[in-house]
Amino acid sequence: MQHIKRFFIGKPLKSSDEGGQQLSKVKALALLSSDALSSVAYGTEQIVTVLITLSAAAIWYSLPIAAFVLILLTSLILSYRQIIHAYPQGGGAYIVSSENLGTYPGLIAGGSLLVDYMLTVAVSVSAGTEAIISAVPALYGNQVGIAIIIVVLITAMNLRGLRDSASLLMIPVYLFVVVITIMILTGLAKISTGSLAFHATSLVGAAVPGITVGLILRAFSSGSSSLTGVEAISNAVPFFKKPKAKNAAATLAIMGIILGFFFAGVTYLNWYLGITPKLKVTILSQVGAAIFGHGSVMFYILQFSTALILALAANTGFSAFPILAYNLAKDKFMPHMYMDRGDRLGYSNGILTLALGSIVLIFIFNGSTERLIPLYATGVFVPFTLSQTGMIRKWWHKRSKGWIGRSLANFVGALISFSIFIFLLMYHLGDVWPYFIIMPIVLLVFYKIHDHYLKVAAQLRLVKQVKFHDYAGSTVIVLVSNVTQVTVGALNYARSIGDYVIAMHVSMDENPAKEHETESEFKKDFPDIRFVDIHSSYRSVSRPVLRFAKIISKNARERNYTITILVPQFVPKKPWQNILHNQTSLRLRAALASREDIVVATYSYHLKR
Amino acid sequence: MQHIKRFFIGKPLKSSDEGGQQLSKVKALALLSSDALSSVAYGTEQIVTVLITLSAAAIWYSLPIAAFVLILLTSLILSYRQIIHAYPQGGGAYIVSSENLGTYPGLIAGGSLLVDYMLTVAVSVSAGTEAIISAVPALYGNQVGIAIIIVVLITAMNLRGLRDSASLLMIPVYLFVVVITIMILTGLAKISTGSLAFHATSLVGAAVPGITVGLILRAFSSGSSSLTGVEAISNAVPFFKKPKAKNAAATLAIMGIILGFFFAGVTYLNWYLGITPKLKVTILSQVGAAIFGHGSVMFYILQFSTALILALAANTGFSAFPILAYNLAKDKFMPHMYMDRGDRLGYSNGILTLALGSIVLIFIFNGSTERLIPLYATGVFVPFTLSQTGMIRKWWHKRSKGWIGRSLANFVGALISFSIFIFLLMYHLGDVWPYFIIMPIVLLVFYKIHDHYLKVAAQLRLVKQVKFHDYAGSTVIVLVSNVTQVTVGALNYARSIGDYVIAMHVSMDENPAKEHETESEFKKDFPDIRFVDIHSSYRSVSRPVLRFAKIISKNARERNYTITILVPQFVPKKPWQNILHNQTSLRLRAALASREDIVVATYSYHLKR
Repeated sequence: MQHIKRFFIGKPLKSSDEGGQQLSKVKALALLSSDALSSVAYGTEQIVTVLITLSAAAIWYSLPIAAFVLILLTSLILSYRQIIHAYPQGGGAYIVSSENLGTYPGLIAGGSLLVDYMLTVAVSVSAGTEAIISAVPALYGNQVGIAIIIVVLITAMNLRGLRDSASLLMIPVYLFVVVITIMILTGLAKISTGSLAFHATSLVGAAVPGITVGLILRAFSSGSSSLTGVEAISNAVPFFKKPKAKNAAATLAIMGIILGFFFAGVTYLNWYLGITPKLKVTILSQVGAAIFGHGSVMFYILQFSTALILALAANTGFSAFPILAYNLAKDKFMPHMYMDRGDRLGYSNGILTLALGSIVLIFIFNGSTERLIPLYATGVFVPFTLSQTGMIRKWWHKRSKGWIGRSLANFVGALISFSIFIFLLMYHLGDVWPYFIIMPIVLLVFYKIHDHYLKVAAQLRLVKQVKFHDYAGSTVIVLVSNVTQVTVGALNYARSIGDYVIAMHVSMDENPAKEHETESEFKKDFPDIRFVDIHSSYRSVSRPVLRFAKIISKNARERNYTITILVPQFVPKKPWQNILHNQTSLRLRAALASREDIVVATYSYHLKR
Repeated sequence: MQHIKRFFIGKPLKSSDEGGQQLSKVKALALLSSDALSSVAYGTEQIVTVLITLSAAAIWYSLPIAAFVLILLTSLILSYRQIIHAYPQGGGAYIVSSENLGTYPGLIAGGSLLVDYMLTVAVSVSAGTEAIISAVPALYGNQVGIAIIIVVLITAMNLRGLRDSASLLMIPVYLFVVVITIMILTGLAKISTGSLAFHATSLVGAAVPGITVGLILRAFSSGSSSLTGVEAISNAVPFFKKPKAKNAAATLAIMGIILGFFFAGVTYLNWYLGITPKLKVTILSQVGAAIFGHGSVMFYILQFSTALILALAANTGFSAFPILAYNLAKDKFMPHMYMDRGDRLGYSNGILTLALGSIVLIFIFNGSTERLIPLYATGVFVPFTLSQTGMIRKWWHKRSKGWIGRSLANFVGALISFSIFIFLLMYHLGDVWPYFIIMPIVLLVFYKIHDHYLKVAAQLRLVKQVKFHDYAGSTVIVLVSNVTQVTVGALNYARSIGDYVIAMHVSMDENPAKEHETESEFKKDFPDIRFVDIHSSYRSVSRPVLRFAKIISKNARERNYTITILVPQFVPKKPWQNILHNQTSLRLRAALASREDIVVATYSYHLKR
């Protein structure tokens, strides 16, 4: 087991190695932008798909809609750059909202994102799997299996730690960036030389009968799901090289420029070429085929790198979820175990929870998760709205130089995010409603956990003057199943800690002759130690032991003694042999935890062969 | 949890309640014969399916083949009646073979049956599910789910105990018996009154071109799978009412008569009506339709009771597997836990293992398990051969009155079983080969377990003169994470058992100021107790504790002290809250088991709210 773990995860790192795990801009872009960049693969398509429901002539509206999405992108990025500078220790929506708006809005933001990261992973991996299947149709029917293998691989990479994964992730991300850039530039070049014919379904500004504001808003809110990847970088500021905030803000800007260029380019080429969505062939793939030629090498590279970046978009969730879980755990809204770091300095419990959650989602939706996208977008734009509203309050409280400009930037961001949220409710309620069931449950869980931790802390707090209680002595009860070497060792130990040692045996045999066999054997070998034989009519060891413990406990209280029950346990040489032993001692330990006044001690007897 | 368990399983029974759990003949027949009787649903079909590969005219051969199968049945039953009388304490193939032929043949018999019972459950439940699906086609696509629900229900019945299940099982078994009896008698009556026309594909004795001995043996060995249910009763003798052996032998005879009548009747009616196997419609169902009329009430009752008894055939495995596992565990070939009885006196671990194994098989084969039948038959006839050969040796050793007759009966039984085994190898090797891979693995596991238990027993055996070792005192190390009420309680206890008490804290914080916070807090409150602060560079608590334990251990050896490490643990009020605590103490306990000289004691602090 240990060896397998070492092979996949690598050897443990010291906490002080932390610095070495930090990211350059080039690596950070690879690690944190795959979610945003991969939206190029479906962003234009989602807008056009809505417009085409009216008519092919309506496609020209994708150009102004895309332009508006780009304006949103710019303002979101400006807004998030401010968050990065204001929260250089990492400012996710959870931290920003709870600090500036209060605990409750913070928890809504945090809870939304927590669930959303699971959706990201499930949706991205499923999309990547579909792309793989369209490339290799022989794999059809194994979608769920392939998706789970991808999740497991990404999980392993993340357990290895940030730096190692970034190196691995750079190849596919930059491959995608290069391929799409070549595609757009080639397309524009071919258009300017006239070797790519103009096929647009209608000219820009052409009158389209039946067009409504509702349809345009519907198309717009579909397209806005391309904006969901922006949060990742602002969450991860602490992982950047110094100067952290500056590098993070620069990375965010670079990502915004690339994404904007891609989104505008693909939407323009699509309109120019007059491409309409087809079943089984994506718009990006049609644009690629028109520019590179169907079946050309570049076309296949495009398909392949699209599949890869979609699969890797899941990694954004793996970067962000554990940090968010850590922050929630630190504030006592999630179990403390999310604060533990693994051997490679990653928050392993968060990584594993996310992997498990997304695998469950993949199973439930059987690998086809398209309809989850509006739900997922809702879960993103709610925290976006909250965190930017929080920033406005922050600027207002400080009112330092330039606060009005800053507030304005965040106000625009908040307004856009909130509008998209409203549009999603208006035009996609059929897919969005589960949000209003999931969130109250998540908030209830947060509340229950928080309440528990607070109550525990109150109980445990020491009063001013700590006074010791002096016990008069200690009773030790040694559990004896057979009289063996283990009995001798356990009794030796018991006599070293106890003032009064009792051996206890639970007999279950129906045969009275056999029942007293252990007793007589014991008395022969250890005549000076009291032996108690308890008969169990129900074949349970725990119940009679608890019953006897109650009597002893009363006795010990009167004499001011502590009670220890010593349970011997075998430690076999090979792990599989554990199944051959210790069932009783496990059950006993669980049962005895119900008594506060009894300490259960485990005597480990090591089997030599 | 406890309430749910009580509802499904019932309240615990005393060991001395055993007597009340015993079976009358009527109940035993219901409980132990469903496997045998359900073979009526497919026995004739398997013979005819092989014959029809030559021509429809060959179907008349099913009559002599069925007659021969009936002779086999009679001789197997005679042979098994002898086993029942010779082993009134329960004589499965494992016990009979190992007592008379030696350990190795016994293990082959036991191992075969152990795997076979899992196959029985998987095959029967899948067949029952198919029958349910043909009745309610809307359920198609949920086979695996339905099969698993059936397994879970049967498991729950068996965990409740024998008597309760028998009452529940009586209804479907006797319903099936009544329905088939009515069907055969109605059929014969209609034939004699001439209202059912003779449609046989050929007369008995008609020359069939191309018929070979091979084909007949192939058909015969297919049909012999109907004989596999005979073992169940001889395994279960101890569960019968007194006189146990007599009642069991009588039940076996009754079962044989019913099965013989059914098998002969269905085969004869099938030949007379000239029915050939059709896809999706079983022969039994065609015979029923011809006699009762398609769509009549009786026809549906027939279909329904067939589905039920197929599903319940699984119960035979549930009766036999736990007892076999118990016997193997008693002889140290399987883990001891198979000897533990549950609350309702059933061997719960055996029941649960069988349920789990069969669920895994259902998953692997996706609910379609027909091709497992030859494999399953092989696993039955090998132990049959071994146990009856064992009986011959037994009679030879005793040579009491009538031993020659008895030996002859068992010899015929052994010969038949062995021949069928050979035919299965010759004509169904394509399905039977896994037997020769599974068995060596099972035997290896038996050997490994046995070897381990023997080695353990040798190590633990006490030498003649037991001498105590007197320790000079005890060192107690109390693990402190924060200074709280728990610390006070743990230290109080530690002082009652220890001569030397140390508090130990593992610090992981990078921040040196915070690192020593716990230390100064502790020293303020407990100035007289030594406090050791250990820094962990790898964020692991176990490793530094083990490192420190090593030093203390050397020290303690020199001073002749024992060492106890006291780990505090929280006991929350509600079970779900456990996920919020104790991760560290669990990991520590596991890590510290690696040191024999250290006893780990758990101090349970109960949270009050």
